[in-house]
Amino acid sequence: MKNYKITVEYDGTDFGGWQRQKNARTVQEELERAVSKITTEEVNVIGSGRTDAGVHALGQVANFKTNSRIKPGNLLKGMNSLLPESITVKNIEEVNLKFNARYDQKLKTYKYTIWNSPIRTSLNFKFCHHLAVPLNIKKIRSGSKFLLGEHNFSSFESKSNKGKNSVRELKVIKIDTDEDYINISITGTGFLYNMVRAIVGTLIEVGRGKLEPAEVKHILLKKDRKFAGPTAPAKGLCLMEVKY
Amino acid sequence: MKNYKITVEYDGTDFGGWQRQKNARTVQEELERAVSKITTEEVNVIGSGRTDAGVHALGQVANFKTNSRIKPGNLLKGMNSLLPESITVKNIEEVNLKFNARYDQKLKTYKYTIWNSPIRTSLNFKFCHHLAVPLNIKKIRSGSKFLLGEHNFSSFESKSNKGKNSVRELKVIKIDTDEDYINISITGTGFLYNMVRAIVGTLIEVGRGKLEPAEVKHILLKKDRKFAGPTAPAKGLCLMEVKY
Repeated sequence: MKNYKITVEYDGTDFGGWQRQKNARTVQEELERAVSKITTEEVNVIGSGRTDAGVHALGQVANFKTNSRIKPGNLLKGMNSLLPESITVKNIEEVNLKFNARYDQKLKTYKYTIWNSPIRTSLNFKFCHHLAVPLNIKKIRSGSKFLLGEHNFSSFESKSNKGKNSVRELKVIKIDTDEDYINISITGTGFLYNMVRAIVGTLIEVGRGKLEPAEVKHILLKKDRKFAGPTAPAKGLCLMEVKY
Repeated sequence: MKNYKITVEYDGTDFGGWQRQKNARTVQEELERAVSKITTEEVNVIGSGRTDAGVHALGQVANFKTNSRIKPGNLLKGMNSLLPESITVKNIEEVNLKFNARYDQKLKTYKYTIWNSPIRTSLNFKFCHHLAVPLNIKKIRSGSKFLLGEHNFSSFESKSNKGKNSVRELKVIKIDTDEDYINISITGTGFLYNMVRAIVGTLIEVGRGKLEPAEVKHILLKKDRKFAGPTAPAKGLCLMEVKY
């Protein structure tokens, strides 16, 4: 038996997210179907985590085990020829049988893209969140600093974690601009459900002046989702990298 | 009566091109429907030129006349609220009644985007043409130089022009790279049907070594479409700017 680690890029627009489910095409299901067709075995593709419907990935990581003796390079080519163009396996490598893409991850980076301009964009509208009201980048940066480090992020978690640990550690928050784009990159040891989108929704409130930067700290301490900003739309979010 | 010049951005993926037609959604039709709904008049939106199905635009220009007294800023807002997100009116200005977007243009710039990498891209696949074979940029640049200036471009014209003048003038051809992207920008006084895509298809043959750069000159002199390379796919093409 062999264990393969794959790196996957996808345009999440037309998928019901990562996880296999009834009544929606999902990325996991497409990958499993492609591998099974090649190896003629049932396969379980384990992702580093779920991404929601509409969320994109440049570097999602997953693994699967197979008894097939097909060479990894041929497996990659075969998968890409079977997958829709909106999903691409960018890399494949054989890893230790114990490797698990979900449990062994150390760091994950997401990028959220805002198109901050009076007029929306049509060429990239599926990959960014349009906001016409001008955002104050300095305020966003200073608000974001309160989120760095280890905290209980319950205030930025969509679903109740049912007594599970909501402590996570954010290592880097980088906010940069590129013409009318604002990119918010967040690297952490792990993320709660909808955590990045709730953080971005809150930083947008800071950027438009509805919240003062220092209030981000108070929101964090409340440990209650209702104090943070709204969940920013899925389409602006992209899973950039997972480190092991 | 007023004459309005508009600048339009669109993701051409889901449209049957610019021009109004039966059996396909088109950009012109969507714009006319939006204007008519606001002005409650029939309207004829005149584009600088047609773009084919799948071709995109960052700066298509068009004009239309209306008796409506609505302020242009409100017309722009109204149109964008009625248009699908894949079409955006970026600018509107009142122009002389004699202005005609098709006949008064002086210069047009197209950009063609190639993704030149062993692995395709899923995040941007609707906006570029994927080529796995490495292209030689220097050869493309040197081949492209023969196209500059005034020439009979019959060899790069898809449909017969039926005795019409096939002489056009190319002012600028710029080839640059950005990571795995190759961007070919072409500015000219006018373009024949499918001319940019036939030029790009030919330059790709040069880049992959199937044609020598100097052969571009011979192809031009043949004045026969069959000597040039294939027509590159529509989705890599974007109309960037029209000058008047």
